[in-house]
Amino acid sequence: MREKITSSQNKRVKQWRALTTKKGRKQTETYLLEGWHLVQEAIKAKQALTAIMGTAEQLTAHAAVFPPDVATFELTDSIAKTIGDANTPQGIFATAPLAETTSVDPQDAQGGWLFLDQVQDPGNIGTMVRTADAAGLTGVVFGLGSASRYLPKVLRSMQGSQFHIQLVEDDLHEWIQTFTARHLPVYGTNLDPQAKDYRDVSPLTAGAIVMGNEGNGMAPDLQQLTTRNLYIPIKGQAESLNVAVAAGIVMFQLFG
Amino acid sequence: MREKITSSQNKRVKQWRALTTKKGRKQTETYLLEGWHLVQEAIKAKQALTAIMGTAEQLTAHAAVFPPDVATFELTDSIAKTIGDANTPQGIFATAPLAETTSVDPQDAQGGWLFLDQVQDPGNIGTMVRTADAAGLTGVVFGLGSASRYLPKVLRSMQGSQFHIQLVEDDLHEWIQTFTARHLPVYGTNLDPQAKDYRDVSPLTAGAIVMGNEGNGMAPDLQQLTTRNLYIPIKGQAESLNVAVAAGIVMFQLFG
Repeated sequence: MREKITSSQNKRVKQWRALTTKKGRKQTETYLLEGWHLVQEAIKAKQALTAIMGTAEQLTAHAAVFPPDVATFELTDSIAKTIGDANTPQGIFATAPLAETTSVDPQDAQGGWLFLDQVQDPGNIGTMVRTADAAGLTGVVFGLGSASRYLPKVLRSMQGSQFHIQLVEDDLHEWIQTFTARHLPVYGTNLDPQAKDYRDVSPLTAGAIVMGNEGNGMAPDLQQLTTRNLYIPIKGQAESLNVAVAAGIVMFQLFG
Repeated sequence: MREKITSSQNKRVKQWRALTTKKGRKQTETYLLEGWHLVQEAIKAKQALTAIMGTAEQLTAHAAVFPPDVATFELTDSIAKTIGDANTPQGIFATAPLAETTSVDPQDAQGGWLFLDQVQDPGNIGTMVRTADAAGLTGVVFGLGSASRYLPKVLRSMQGSQFHIQLVEDDLHEWIQTFTARHLPVYGTNLDPQAKDYRDVSPLTAGAIVMGNEGNGMAPDLQQLTTRNLYIPIKGQAESLNVAVAAGIVMFQLFG
């Protein structure tokens, strides 16, 4: 069943446009998936969708794999261009419910985890979630003060990895303390050459890596709670690595 | 000597604004350094600058380290905001001459190199240059079809690494063939699990790694010229890694 929307003043269209803002997401308790790759990943992961919408051309191209019970809306090309924030919109979207805030108890967490301490750049955050997925980690904890996982640029950079691994928003103090109490190693990262060289740590099957804020690194009080803090030796004249690159190097060394 | 500019119609102001475009850079044969971090890196590297410009406050804060022979221009706050493309402009800039197109002969190249084959995303390119610097590589070759090193977002992501390592624009066929003729290993990268696991290669002191286009990977004809092609095993469900993350993992494994 396909409903056709031709007015840009349609109430639903206004709600979809508002999904690039926090307020808009809160109002409908949903977020926006932009582009066929993300919509397809959601369908493959059997993610609950509240709507699929797109141009006639896009809907026809992909309708064969749409779940039968999801409301579908056909948009004119000009309306489709006003939704989302991609530079080159593909004309296909879906809406999905916001996840519950905290879905995993650190007492029960298994395997490898990435903890994000006040990481700010949406592209970095999304890339780290994608890398954590590729390295076989179980999930990522967004500490208090990290940017939201529902920002359009985070969603784009994750490339659907939110459907493959567990994402949690929670206080990192609790996660670090619970992991170390369970004798699971938690490795912080910083730029201090007094820290341990990341290559001198044995590969892990369970435990966590903490990445800190782009400008300030990990909070000092969190650094004190970790099992060890690691650093990546810099051979050239760059002052530091991009946080997502550093996270990739450490995750693949320890878990990859 | 400080010249004060108060008209937004000033000819120099128009030229500086145009430096976010290729045409504008070509007209004056210069490019724009935005923000104190980049201007400072250029001064530290004794890079030739054609002008330093900024608000009264910014110029006063940093004047002590300006090279004596560079023309300095004081801008009103409102003019400063119209130059460059940073989201949060700092009000300090410099202009530097565009480099000669090709400055290094592959016959003479020493140490480790990163070759970029049609990499498109400016943030990825800048991050790879910064990572190559951090990993102690000698330089980066921008193959034909890779985005320009003078795009504002490339410059921002490099964080000044263009002053630490050599950047060259040239045909990768020639670089790969010259390296292999000199018995320097050149490792391509691709997503083919038939390729060699990157962890099974010995660390290098000289040689090159090739990273390909974000969507299509390395060009097939270049893959045939390499010593070997490497892949990074994906353990989770992500289809691939971000190219800058993959480059970081391989560079630190082979050269770090």
